[in-house]
Amino acid sequence: MEKYVGKDIPRNDGYDKATGRGLFTHDIFLPHMLYAKVLRSPYAHARVVSIDTSEAEKMKGVRAVCTFENTTSKLFNTSATMVTTNPGAEPVRDQTVFTGEPKYIGDEIAAVAADTEKIAEEAVKKIKVEYEELPYVLDPLEAIKDDAPDVQPELAHKKNICGEVIEINFGDVNKGFEDAEVVVDAFVKLPRVKQAQMETHAAVASYKSDGTLEVYSTTQTPHPTKMIIAYTFDLPESKVHVKNPPYVGGGFGVRIGISGKAEMIATALTMRAKRPVKFVYTRAEDFLYSDTRHGGYLKGRLGAKKDGTFVALDTTAWLNTGAYATFGVELLGVCGACGTAGTYHVPNLHYSGYPVYTNQETAGAFRGFGTPQGTFIVETLVDAMAKKLDMDPIELRKMNTMKETDDNWFPFSLGSIGVNECLDKAAAEIGWKEKRGKCKEGKIRRGVGIACGTHVSNAAPFCVDYNAVTLRIEQDGSMVVQSGIPEIGPGSTTALLQVTADEMGIDFDKITMQFGDTKAGPFDIGSHATRTLYTVSQVIDKAAKKLKADIFDYTAELMKMDREGMYMEGGVIISGDKKVALKDLAYEAHLRGKQFIESDSMVPPNSLPWYAQAAEVEVDMETGMVKVLKVAAAHDVGKVVNPRLAEGQIEGGVIQGVGYACREEMTYVDGKGFYNSGFHNYMLPTADDVPEVVSILVESNDPKGIYGIKGIGEVGVCPTAPAIVSAVEDATGIRFHEIPMTPGRVLKAIKEKEQESA
Amino acid sequence: MEKYVGKDIPRNDGYDKATGRGLFTHDIFLPHMLYAKVLRSPYAHARVVSIDTSEAEKMKGVRAVCTFENTTSKLFNTSATMVTTNPGAEPVRDQTVFTGEPKYIGDEIAAVAADTEKIAEEAVKKIKVEYEELPYVLDPLEAIKDDAPDVQPELAHKKNICGEVIEINFGDVNKGFEDAEVVVDAFVKLPRVKQAQMETHAAVASYKSDGTLEVYSTTQTPHPTKMIIAYTFDLPESKVHVKNPPYVGGGFGVRIGISGKAEMIATALTMRAKRPVKFVYTRAEDFLYSDTRHGGYLKGRLGAKKDGTFVALDTTAWLNTGAYATFGVELLGVCGACGTAGTYHVPNLHYSGYPVYTNQETAGAFRGFGTPQGTFIVETLVDAMAKKLDMDPIELRKMNTMKETDDNWFPFSLGSIGVNECLDKAAAEIGWKEKRGKCKEGKIRRGVGIACGTHVSNAAPFCVDYNAVTLRIEQDGSMVVQSGIPEIGPGSTTALLQVTADEMGIDFDKITMQFGDTKAGPFDIGSHATRTLYTVSQVIDKAAKKLKADIFDYTAELMKMDREGMYMEGGVIISGDKKVALKDLAYEAHLRGKQFIESDSMVPPNSLPWYAQAAEVEVDMETGMVKVLKVAAAHDVGKVVNPRLAEGQIEGGVIQGVGYACREEMTYVDGKGFYNSGFHNYMLPTADDVPEVVSILVESNDPKGIYGIKGIGEVGVCPTAPAIVSAVEDATGIRFHEIPMTPGRVLKAIKEKEQESA
Repeated sequence: MEKYVGKDIPRNDGYDKATGRGLFTHDIFLPHMLYAKVLRSPYAHARVVSIDTSEAEKMKGVRAVCTFENTTSKLFNTSATMVTTNPGAEPVRDQTVFTGEPKYIGDEIAAVAADTEKIAEEAVKKIKVEYEELPYVLDPLEAIKDDAPDVQPELAHKKNICGEVIEINFGDVNKGFEDAEVVVDAFVKLPRVKQAQMETHAAVASYKSDGTLEVYSTTQTPHPTKMIIAYTFDLPESKVHVKNPPYVGGGFGVRIGISGKAEMIATALTMRAKRPVKFVYTRAEDFLYSDTRHGGYLKGRLGAKKDGTFVALDTTAWLNTGAYATFGVELLGVCGACGTAGTYHVPNLHYSGYPVYTNQETAGAFRGFGTPQGTFIVETLVDAMAKKLDMDPIELRKMNTMKETDDNWFPFSLGSIGVNECLDKAAAEIGWKEKRGKCKEGKIRRGVGIACGTHVSNAAPFCVDYNAVTLRIEQDGSMVVQSGIPEIGPGSTTALLQVTADEMGIDFDKITMQFGDTKAGPFDIGSHATRTLYTVSQVIDKAAKKLKADIFDYTAELMKMDREGMYMEGGVIISGDKKVALKDLAYEAHLRGKQFIESDSMVPPNSLPWYAQAAEVEVDMETGMVKVLKVAAAHDVGKVVNPRLAEGQIEGGVIQGVGYACREEMTYVDGKGFYNSGFHNYMLPTADDVPEVVSILVESNDPKGIYGIKGIGEVGVCPTAPAIVSAVEDATGIRFHEIPMTPGRVLKAIKEKEQESA
Repeated sequence: MEKYVGKDIPRNDGYDKATGRGLFTHDIFLPHMLYAKVLRSPYAHARVVSIDTSEAEKMKGVRAVCTFENTTSKLFNTSATMVTTNPGAEPVRDQTVFTGEPKYIGDEIAAVAADTEKIAEEAVKKIKVEYEELPYVLDPLEAIKDDAPDVQPELAHKKNICGEVIEINFGDVNKGFEDAEVVVDAFVKLPRVKQAQMETHAAVASYKSDGTLEVYSTTQTPHPTKMIIAYTFDLPESKVHVKNPPYVGGGFGVRIGISGKAEMIATALTMRAKRPVKFVYTRAEDFLYSDTRHGGYLKGRLGAKKDGTFVALDTTAWLNTGAYATFGVELLGVCGACGTAGTYHVPNLHYSGYPVYTNQETAGAFRGFGTPQGTFIVETLVDAMAKKLDMDPIELRKMNTMKETDDNWFPFSLGSIGVNECLDKAAAEIGWKEKRGKCKEGKIRRGVGIACGTHVSNAAPFCVDYNAVTLRIEQDGSMVVQSGIPEIGPGSTTALLQVTADEMGIDFDKITMQFGDTKAGPFDIGSHATRTLYTVSQVIDKAAKKLKADIFDYTAELMKMDREGMYMEGGVIISGDKKVALKDLAYEAHLRGKQFIESDSMVPPNSLPWYAQAAEVEVDMETGMVKVLKVAAAHDVGKVVNPRLAEGQIEGGVIQGVGYACREEMTYVDGKGFYNSGFHNYMLPTADDVPEVVSILVESNDPKGIYGIKGIGEVGVCPTAPAIVSAVEDATGIRFHEIPMTPGRVLKAIKEKEQESA
């Protein structure tokens, strides 16, 4: 019955995006629309002593000036966590739309809406602000010291800890280390990196006189965004209409919830100006004043028996969440749960995760959501253990990876585990046996490395996580799928139609999907957590069963066909030797005043996507340049719905992983803030840096979702950096505990090693 | 429990429309959008011998040229009848997007899409067409003669009859006249008049590369319009997305289906240009090349006993449907069924309705849809009978109006009949007893007149007529109503929320409605036939009962509350002495992955809205000027949902009736076409012409819908003209059998009467 699932169907949005016809929030222009510009704090921590907007307000063409004084001071959290946290786990609400006590360089003080961008810019300059500078702290390890300045004194539970310290305990870690025969330690430092999605944060908000608010937005979670806006501005959720237009120029987690603060600022201004307001982040604003990946420090200790059996693992993360929590708490949870505690069966585990406030730009969600950081420390430890035990790193991994029958801390059944198959296939593709550990000499040295791990396919049961969907048959038998899920780039809305077509037995080209619209589509928690295809396919399946039952019941009665054994194929309803085209049946129903519509909602199970990536690198010993030649990326996706789309996800993740390992880093300059204000001074991988990526799709056919599907969206990036670090160690004998491995950093290490050897 | 029904809630769209913030199709501008202009036939009937578009295509900025040669020649009908006709009654499909054999002055030959309107206009002029002129016919009585030119030779069943001659027979009309003791005859001529809605026809169509077509449109029936477009351009209905933006600047029937041909032409061009195309009718195009009310001729004969009891009524209508059928057939049906055969209990009835093709602009639906024409001939006959019998016209009417127990031809139960109460109240308000039949002398003469009648509250069971709706509770207990119904001006979407609020027990300001969008809202036959409030309130009621049941079941289980006797009021669910706010319950459900959503569809019953209007006029015997001083408009609306909105509907209808009686007329100039190309040369009533209108809302509480509601949208216009004609007769002694009673026509009649008397 799988006519479409598994096929390379070209993505529905491909041509429109390639030809510039697909609309994004940046493309939205409404009649009478105003343009917004923001006044930001020049200080990392300060108090506004006085603010005078009178000169700005007098300017011709200025229609509204909003400041912390005339705008709601309700505390919120820009991340979707605000409305998706399980009962009992209080979300950290620590932001306001504008602030009189800026907490980082760039914090929003005020904004102007004017007839043109130019006027708005000029008006912002005319707002006079007197600041009192306050002490600040920038490093997470500094921030948790007792004498550090307080970033959020009223909201931090412990010294500069947002929310709570995450603790995971499994078995008895102390006893585990007592039993260990070999122990290795590591301490790593990871950078902040930027999502650098194509479309900067943007929103066009229109407040209407009946109290409804329409917000075109770049969010990747329209419904949660709607809820946060409704809460903050005290509007009924039914009156807040958040929609993508319908496309979003990438997300990678940076707008799970509010897009920077675009929706908030546009909303504040439209409610004051009573005209539509467009607020588009410049590239510099997007880089400097919206979430990055969490950087910081992790330490770990791994204990094993002499045969390589792991017996204890203790890890700690101190990650820099910046001035506001956003996803700080949850991300430290995933860092521990998936990143450090998920991959291997270790009977005695402990993890502490510290989400630390500092006076910097916020960190938040970015593809992998803590798993890359956790994976980095664990894979560093495992490689160290292999070295210490003189074992093959792959063999050591394979004997310790989680098995389906292993006792574990996951609050759900493990399902299928394809990680060892991934390890074998990645190793084979990279030529592990021929290349690993071979003697390295000369100016250009090659090496291979590997890393593996797991993640989740959604956020359940850790957070509120569910989808609703409405399915409808049109009067000619074609079909509409209404979902609140957005299309943020991966092509999920094409893959979901493939699933729908097979589920229903209706041809793919007869089905259309409405997505990214909170009024049109029912609730959906959004596109994040590797969940879109995995979870929405399940609720479609659930609703499709009801819809087919409704159609079949009607057919049986109207057409006098046997209900038993009735099925649909290619848009034809068949029972025994009788058949009727859905097109004809739907029109007959239309003539009788009947339309087939079904809605349903469900909390999905969770499934573990496993993966292993092997990298081959070339290191120039004279320049310190690391060139990644090839990444063999083997991913247990459960079941492939659309090979090309799946490969696209893996390739995109791998390239971000290459940047993480070798190029990208947000650099803070004390007193000035981050240095990296755009693509000219933030070293994203370019075409020249992109290795050959061989995607290997492993189908373990997970029993929990439908068709065996697992998630794929985030995992491409998770093991890439440690695999590359491992390959660099293989090439140079140097293990890097800090990334990115920039030429400067590599050259310094090579020289230090030469001095040591000398 | 009626907290909102019956209240003067300000309409939701009022402020936005008054302040220019509400968006209409004219306001829609999309990136890369092109502008369309049309080449039209200068001849009433011709054949295109050759067409050369090469010069136009060469112009810089021209992106597409569509002609009858390169565009689908699939036959369609622009009216919604195409997709709403009951099985067996074949819809007349007699139009193509462009034609090589134009059938009226203005028929569409070709169209251009270009970067600017100016370029498109210039390009249209550069299309070279050679025509062969053909014979044509303009008058319906001429057109049915055997030797008349054929307008649609292949599609007319009888000589220039589109579809079929409508026949209604009840009892035995010949025997009825044999039994009659008094017989009167009449023959009337009625003009074509124009809907003159504020917003001219317009569409912005975007064809996307995944095969979806998005059409912003002025249609008053988005779903049927979607179906007609899908059929004509061979697209799945799920891929055709028709939407109002969300407002429509009036309809009055002129766009039940396609708006002129705006959607068709914009679609043809966008599919060729692969860019969005906007086509806006100029006011002249709207007047000259889109549907008018049907003008033509009606004759009638009424037989009664000497005591005034009606025994036989025979009427015939020959209405000019123009070059294409549109609603010709159905409208002639309603003219007979409601207009001539609906008001009075006449045991022997016959009616013939001829929808006649001519080589003129099409006629179609206009508020009342045949009932004003039918009412005009019948009320003329009834007044003549009263005169002949020397009876009070009101008493004669009251004794003959339909009673609930009368046998009748309606295919549904009559329900409540408030017509005699309407007659009494209108008469009392106008001062009938004091003013009627009083001696009239001098230059300025006053008179009063009255007319009454009925109509329907939707099109069932005569046509396919149903609504579907989806109701949804948001995570904060607020509510969304998704409906395919549009808001074309009457404020129905406000009244429907009043009903919803009372039905659900949720506060009005917590509910929002999504309307006028075929992708977002499920199927709805649209806003026409006086049906919107009457029918959509019923399907909301039906779905609301399911939604409440779902909510109450969940509440009973989760909150351990007694399900028995549970109800909701002001957003609070109550059972015995326990209560829980829906806001809290909905959030609890959210935390558990549950959203409350219900859809339903239904074929509504039908209810008869009754009415009587009394008019007082002043006639200047020297200038022939008729001034309508006052109209007392009593309407049996069943139950008032929103008095202000109901009065607005009546007032608007009455003013159109004043124009129909005294001012408005489309004037055809042979060889040139209609003369009236805009508000400067089409005599709409102005503020100076508007009489005092006293709306009297009679509540007969119909048993069939909910709350006793009947329709109100069309009936305001139905009896106005005959009431005014009756008042003019009372003032002058002259009975007009032709309207409008322009000063020239009145003066001519006065002079003829003087000559007769002399």
